[in-house]
Amino acid sequence: MIFTDLLNGKKADKPPVWIMRQAGRYLPEYRELRKSADNFIDFCLNPAKACEVTLQPIRRYNFDASIIFSDILLVPHAIGREVKFIPGTGPVLSKLTAINELSLPDFDDFQNFLKPVADAVTLTRANLPKETALIGFSGAPWTLMTYLTEGGGSRDFNTARDWLWSKPAESEKLLHHLSDYIVSFLTLQANAGANVLMLFDSWAGAVPASQRTKIITGFHKKIISDLRSAGIKLPIISFPKGLSEGLKAYSEKVECQALALDHYVDRRWAADNLRTDLVLQGNLDPLCLVSGGQVMKREVEEILEVFSNRRHIFNLGHGIVPQTPPEHVAELLALIRS
Amino acid sequence: MIFTDLLNGKKADKPPVWIMRQAGRYLPEYRELRKSADNFIDFCLNPAKACEVTLQPIRRYNFDASIIFSDILLVPHAIGREVKFIPGTGPVLSKLTAINELSLPDFDDFQNFLKPVADAVTLTRANLPKETALIGFSGAPWTLMTYLTEGGGSRDFNTARDWLWSKPAESEKLLHHLSDYIVSFLTLQANAGANVLMLFDSWAGAVPASQRTKIITGFHKKIISDLRSAGIKLPIISFPKGLSEGLKAYSEKVECQALALDHYVDRRWAADNLRTDLVLQGNLDPLCLVSGGQVMKREVEEILEVFSNRRHIFNLGHGIVPQTPPEHVAELLALIRS
Repeated sequence: MIFTDLLNGKKADKPPVWIMRQAGRYLPEYRELRKSADNFIDFCLNPAKACEVTLQPIRRYNFDASIIFSDILLVPHAIGREVKFIPGTGPVLSKLTAINELSLPDFDDFQNFLKPVADAVTLTRANLPKETALIGFSGAPWTLMTYLTEGGGSRDFNTARDWLWSKPAESEKLLHHLSDYIVSFLTLQANAGANVLMLFDSWAGAVPASQRTKIITGFHKKIISDLRSAGIKLPIISFPKGLSEGLKAYSEKVECQALALDHYVDRRWAADNLRTDLVLQGNLDPLCLVSGGQVMKREVEEILEVFSNRRHIFNLGHGIVPQTPPEHVAELLALIRS
Repeated sequence: MIFTDLLNGKKADKPPVWIMRQAGRYLPEYRELRKSADNFIDFCLNPAKACEVTLQPIRRYNFDASIIFSDILLVPHAIGREVKFIPGTGPVLSKLTAINELSLPDFDDFQNFLKPVADAVTLTRANLPKETALIGFSGAPWTLMTYLTEGGGSRDFNTARDWLWSKPAESEKLLHHLSDYIVSFLTLQANAGANVLMLFDSWAGAVPASQRTKIITGFHKKIISDLRSAGIKLPIISFPKGLSEGLKAYSEKVECQALALDHYVDRRWAADNLRTDLVLQGNLDPLCLVSGGQVMKREVEEILEVFSNRRHIFNLGHGIVPQTPPEHVAELLALIRS
């Protein structure tokens, strides 16, 4: 697999490419299948459907990697914080106000609850083309903590940050619990047949700078170290979104094989300053893909040029948005693969 | 005035201090007066009330600077995009979809519409203690463009970013118009008696990195240059929020006298890397002020220590939040002034 070979140190002629949320609402075949389940969590926990949805963009575009169709909020759900997806609002959870409101399951029960994800991984791996990598993933502790404490998404993360300042010991305890479940969830996916693991810390940028080393870097380091101790050798892509040049200090401490860059990262800076053994992934603005045409062509050419001297995975800087015309994805692939 | 002296190059024994949104909902006397007007825009455009509200935190805490009570959305309002503030939702505007939907007023009409702000500045200056500086301000072009195109606040700024990619020429034209009105608004406040001007680009961080120089740095540079050409000599504080280490390139091009740092900026990096003639303002997390106590004390001491070798204004990294206990502000001032 060109994708895992790259992550394991081999150079590639052209960057392999996949797209965050490539199985998603911009695809008519996804929207069609999604109608078959009322509840988004049930949809994620149906191995046949999750497999089918994961395969859809591979059939259409032959991406170099697929990512198992799942959601970072399955972990909160699995530890007893019911998650509901309200159209137009997004995910809604009951707001965690103290850690003793959690009824923490043991790891066997936790893995049993998430077994459908493992089954989906196994089924998808069996049905994917041999050369296509399969990525398993989890949200990172801080990002999950924001959903738990804010009771959903947030613009300012004031409640989660209030926890960090007002309840530092309780916050750390919560992050430790989450970290252990995340290791368990990633292990489950690795054992089920995933080829690569990815850690999404979508709201890493919402941690005040003076707490970043503890809350982001520290827990990512711990998760990777725990995975290695458990014998998981798969390459790991980390996505601490929103860290900007803070990625330098981060990547010097966290032993991931690849770092995903959002579109707010100065890519020239990243290519010149991040450790050279690190694969860099990114970083087209998803809204540039919506636009397409000459504007996108120039941006894509710049990305390819900037990363031409290092190992690079082409991707967006965040998930593809629902209003993206599917033909722009084909256009993008033609540009990268030409 | 210690505040303007500092901005003009003099050193100070202790950093002067003020707080973004210091006239605001955390103060019971503010909430009381706010009841006297239904409409937030009317409240801002009432010189007597705006003056009174501006003075409230000065009476209570004797900050070194006051900021005229007003709102960055007065500019969109003044150019014909009615702004409504819906409790629990925030500002709502009708969504701009093309530049020809704007009926751009001439500058006399624009300044006439905003004359109540000038009157509030004059009245406040007359009533402030002599040693307290008065800051006039405006939102910056990009941030105003986000409100216009998103029709209010946003979590992801997808519509505004879509403009940048899909309508680059129209976006630039819009930013040019806004830039000219902003210069006019700041000139009005300078002529009315403001001692310092401040430019808020609250969502600067939402511009993709590859467009930042054009959309943020370029327009800030232009606004300051236009103000200087118009004979406005007041010191200028710029707040391009969310730029992280991008502040270095920014501050090498933009000739502001002070740079406000949000709490996501690594303050040690800022103290060591930004041009030494620049006053740095910031950067306590507003949520740390909500917490107060020992946790805040440690953070404040770190801030004072980090900036002890350069000219520094103490402030938060963003506006004070409504749930802040007013006694924590007194606690903060005691720490800084002790």
